[in-house]
Formats: sequence, C-alpha cells, structure tokens
Amino acid sequence: MDGSIGKQFLKEYIQKTDPLITKYLEGRIQEASEIGAVPKETMVRFLDLIRKGKKIRGALVVLGYQAAGGTDLEEIYDTSLFMEIVHAGALIHDDIMDNDALRRGEPSFHKQFEALAKERVIHTTPRHYGISIAIPTSDVSFYLSCDKLITGKFPQDNVVKAMNIYIHYLIRLGLGQILEFANSGMENLNEEEVLKALWIKSGEYTSLLPLHVGATLAGLKDKKKLEAINEYARCFGWAFQIQDDYLGLFGDEEEIGKPVGSDIREGKQTLFITHMAKHGTSQQKESMRKYLGNKKIDEKDVKEFLRNLEQAGSKKYVVDLGWKYVEEGKPYVAQITSDKAIQGVLESLLVFMMERTN
Amino acid sequence: MDGSIGKQFLKEYIQKTDPLITKYLEGRIQEASEIGAVPKETMVRFLDLIRKGKKIRGALVVLGYQAAGGTDLEEIYDTSLFMEIVHAGALIHDDIMDNDALRRGEPSFHKQFEALAKERVIHTTPRHYGISIAIPTSDVSFYLSCDKLITGKFPQDNVVKAMNIYIHYLIRLGLGQILEFANSGMENLNEEEVLKALWIKSGEYTSLLPLHVGATLAGLKDKKKLEAINEYARCFGWAFQIQDDYLGLFGDEEEIGKPVGSDIREGKQTLFITHMAKHGTSQQKESMRKYLGNKKIDEKDVKEFLRNLEQAGSKKYVVDLGWKYVEEGKPYVAQITSDKAIQGVLESLLVFMMERTN
Repeated sequence: MDGSIGKQFLKEYIQKTDPLITKYLEGRIQEASEIGAVPKETMVRFLDLIRKGKKIRGALVVLGYQAAGGTDLEEIYDTSLFMEIVHAGALIHDDIMDNDALRRGEPSFHKQFEALAKERVIHTTPRHYGISIAIPTSDVSFYLSCDKLITGKFPQDNVVKAMNIYIHYLIRLGLGQILEFANSGMENLNEEEVLKALWIKSGEYTSLLPLHVGATLAGLKDKKKLEAINEYARCFGWAFQIQDDYLGLFGDEEEIGKPVGSDIREGKQTLFITHMAKHGTSQQKESMRKYLGNKKIDEKDVKEFLRNLEQAGSKKYVVDLGWKYVEEGKPYVAQITSDKAIQGVLESLLVFMMERTN
Repeated sequence: MDGSIGKQFLKEYIQKTDPLITKYLEGRIQEASEIGAVPKETMVRFLDLIRKGKKIRGALVVLGYQAAGGTDLEEIYDTSLFMEIVHAGALIHDDIMDNDALRRGEPSFHKQFEALAKERVIHTTPRHYGISIAIPTSDVSFYLSCDKLITGKFPQDNVVKAMNIYIHYLIRLGLGQILEFANSGMENLNEEEVLKALWIKSGEYTSLLPLHVGATLAGLKDKKKLEAINEYARCFGWAFQIQDDYLGLFGDEEEIGKPVGSDIREGKQTLFITHMAKHGTSQQKESMRKYLGNKKIDEKDVKEFLRNLEQAGSKKYVVDLGWKYVEEGKPYVAQITSDKAIQGVLESLLVFMMERTN
C-alpha cells in the first residue's frame, strides 16, 4: 500500500475543517475587535497562519477517534481544531526562538508585525515590537485551543480525561523545546538529549497526543488497543520527524516554505547530525563543527554540508531508518481497529509520512 | 475597618501555600530533570519566582470559594495555586515585552538566562538565549496552571465550569496585553482603549477570574450573589490597579522591586497619564510627550514628570478615585455572604488594596 489513501484523508480533513476554522476564528476576531484594532489584527493573521498548515496533527485526532469506534464525525472534526490551534500557536513561539523569518511560505508571525511596526508610531524597535505582539498572540492560542477541546460535545468524563492527556504532553513539549533550544549547535551535542527532544516533539506531541486524545474522546479504555496506538504513534512520530528533518535539509525551498540551509544555520540537531557526528570522517566532523549553527554560511557551504551528509552515509542511514519505522508500525494497525477502511487510512498515512514532499 | 485583617489573610495564605507550591513544583522539577539539565533549571527558577509573589490572586480564589460556602479548605488552598502559577508565567512574558530587567527584586526571568548565557557555549546572543528559554518556560506554566485547576478534587461539573471561566478570562488577558503593548507611549493615547486594557488585567483577570473560579468550585449558582461578586471584583480590581500604578510611579524602589521611573520609560499608560493628558497645562502635556516612553530619561526628568503629575492634580485625582472604589465596593460584601468572618476579610482586603506599599 502506498501513501495515496493517507494523502487523500489529509486532503479531506483540510476541506472539511477549513470552513470550521474560519467560523471559529471569525468569532474570535469579532471578540478581539471589541478589545482593539491590534488584537483584532493578530487574530486575523492567526487565522491565516492556521489555514496554511499541513494539518497532520488535527487529522490524527479524527483518526484516533474513528479508530476507537467514535461515530460523531461532525463534532470530532470541529473539536480536532484544538490541535491545529495550539500547533499554530507553538510555531509562533518557535519562530521567535529559531529566528525563523519564514513560515509556511510567508513571513513568520513576529516578522509580519516587525514589518508593520515600520509604518507605525512605536516606542521600541520594530524587532521588539514584532516579538512583543507575537508572544501574547501565541499565549491566546493556547487558551483558544483549551477552549475548543473543553467545549467539545462529548461525555464530560471523556473530555476531562482528554484534557489531562493534552496538558500532560504540552508540558512535556515546552520542556522539550527548552532542551532542544539549549542543545542547538555542535558543541553541546549530546545524542541522548537530542533523541529525547526529537521524541517529545514528534512521537509524543505530533502523534501520540492527537491519537490518544481522539481515542479518549471516543471513550476508548481497552488497554491493549491503547498500547497498540502508542506503538503505532511511536513509529508514526519517528517517520514524520525523519522526513521533516530530511525536507529541512534536502527539500525544495518552494515546497517547504523556508530557505535551504536554514536548519543548518540554526544548528538544528537531528538524526542526520548525530549520525555524522558518530560515523563521519574527522574532516567531515570538522566541517560540521564549522558550519552547524553558523549564521554566516553561504550557499556553497550548505552544499558542502549536504554532500558530507551523503558521503558519510548519514542521509541514506536516516532515510532507511524512516522506512524501517513505517514497516515496524504497520502490524499495529490491525490491533488498533478491525474496521478495514480505517485500517487502510492508518497504514497509508504512515507510509505518506515518508512520501510527502512538504 | 482598616486593611489589617486583609493583610493578615494574605500573610496566612502565603504561609499555607508556600509548602504546597514547593511540593508541586518539586514534582515538576523532578519531571523536568528527566528531560534535561536546562529544563530542570527553568523549573527551579520558576519555583523561586512564584514563591516571591504577593499572592493576591491566589488568595482571592480561596476567598471566593469560602464566600460561596465552600468548606474543603485543604483542597482549595492547593488548587488555588493554579492562579499563582499562571500569573508568574504571564509575568515572564510581560517582562520580555516591557524590557523589564527586574522582577520581584531579582533579575527578571529572561535576564537570569541572559546572564547564564555568558558562561555557556551558545549559538546566539545572550539576549536571544534568555528570551528563548523564558518563552517556553512561560508556556509550560500555562499548562501547569491548567493541570492544577483540572486535577482539583471538586465535583467534575464545577471543575469544568471553572475551567471555562478561567479560559475565557485568559483569552481576554492575552488580547488585553496586546492592546496595552500596542498602545504604550504617548502618541497612541486613546483613553477608551487604555481603560479597557487596564480593566481586563485588573478587574477581570486579577479579581473577577479568581473570585469567580473559587465560587464556581464551591458550586455557587445563585445569580444575585454572582452579580454581587462581579461588582465587588470591579471595585477591587480598580483599587488594586490604581495602587499598582501609583506604586509604579511613586513607590519605594526597595519595596516594589523595580527601579523608579521604569513605568515612565516604558510609556506605561495608566489613569494618572490619561488624567494629565486631559487636564494638564499645555506645558505639562508637552513634557509628558517628551518623557513618556523615552528610554533615555534620567532621575531629574523622572522627578519633573512626577512633579507634573502632582501639580496637574492627577496624583490626587487618581488616588481619591481608588478610595472611592473601596467605598463603592463595601456594600456588596454583605450581598456575597452572610458569614461575618468572611465579610470582614472581603472588606478589609479591599481596603488593603489601597493601603499596601508593595
């Protein structure tokens, strides 16, 4: 089975939720406009940001719900927005931390307000203005996300349990982001901590959290099925993250919406990096020390860096590992649900994580 | 009645909750230490930050609960920590936005990590390092706060209702912070928006949110009593905010824990400012335009600014207004509860809001 059914599921998710996101955020834009012009502006731009997402995490909420036998599709599509809202919010803070100027092909959130600042009377620098509008916007998004989840029309017991799961993983995400940021760059490379930070943001936050919350909203209590979801999520998360890091290095600038080499300049630590740090030649390691986390490298340096990853076998090793996770995850599908259609989506979406080009 | 009973209530609140905060955060420090050294460090410093708070908001949760007839004091003291956790977290983001170097007498959170960055191998500037550790720490605090509230051992219905109230006001707080930030400085002065931002952070967030959540956890449904709480909270919030802004201008540097004049340098818009903008002489207004939001003013300029506030009658007008709110709030106390002891605390704490010196 290839990734086409999974790709289609994502496409349908986007089609179904796009009007729901707009409707929800329009209510919030209205509320914000009663507070003031700039608050309104933040919500308008936030809606724009969410709409541009790949929506993998939101779709996993629906899939987890369906896999657990949930049948109120209308409600779960709407409630699943909590995941896309919190994710868009987290990206706003991420982009400040990573100094990312682009996100989803547009200026990142703080950069949008930095640009607007130049046309306004302000009492600070445009950069500080941008950051200071972006920080509380992201804070608002966290609470909008809580709102979406807690007001979902599911049995109250399920909602409270789902909230607990959600809160648990978001605390860990924040701590994982601190770890990842503190570790960025070459000198601090600690393989165990790099893997832990990747695991928290991919395995736990990107796949386990949405699948588990979706299943919990459907009332799933069967421990064996939950265990199978955990294992599937583990494989899904690693495949997702490997492809994410692959695209960040080798992907097409147009498709991924950020400049080639930006992950290298930021010193982002991925499996590609930990592999080369271990298995590269001393010359390859030396070049890594020189370029990773170096804001001043040019296109030629980026090319050399990528060539080294290829020659050290790191590119092939990590991509193969991604596909290994896909294979490892497949057998859990049948343990999660006996519904053939949902099995198909689960399996194909897993494959699609490695096939995707953005 | 003076503010001594209220002051004593706050003192007892701090004594009772200090070990609870330490116990809760120590569990989180343990969890964070399993993720990494820097995540652990953030939680250790976060505990330190919370412990230094005035704890007015947390105490209001307990008071709202008691006023509504709640009797499980052990549980409400513990659950009320949600309010102090979210508040400490909000201050971390606030201090980044306001460029505040000091908080509660210590370097502000991002400044602590900016200082630490100078001893570390990092791939960015110390300033960016400090901000980038502080942002996700604050994010974590929001979710810790949600955790504390949702795991409180009260009837589930009450907890879910309380969560909804909490979420509602925190969304508004974030939007209000955006408004306040966007409006800082003199040129953008819009009295209506200044009042709205002040109202959201003082009336709604500081007093209505904790009182209402506390009362809801106790199961209060009586509309008349809720209305009385709203009115009391309105008066409490304005008295609180007026004294806060008074201390920010005229307070003792040692007691308030930040340098004299910092509110002027940041262009903070308060009732003192809106009054002088309306009623000051053209020379006073001109001097305000020159100094408010001007990072480069010296001690002499600060003194001139404060003298102008006095000569324009703004200082007296606003302080009198604060006391007017105290008087306006008192009659609602008897409508909230018939318990004489709790009535005493409600009334005295209201007075104490204007008597406090930090």
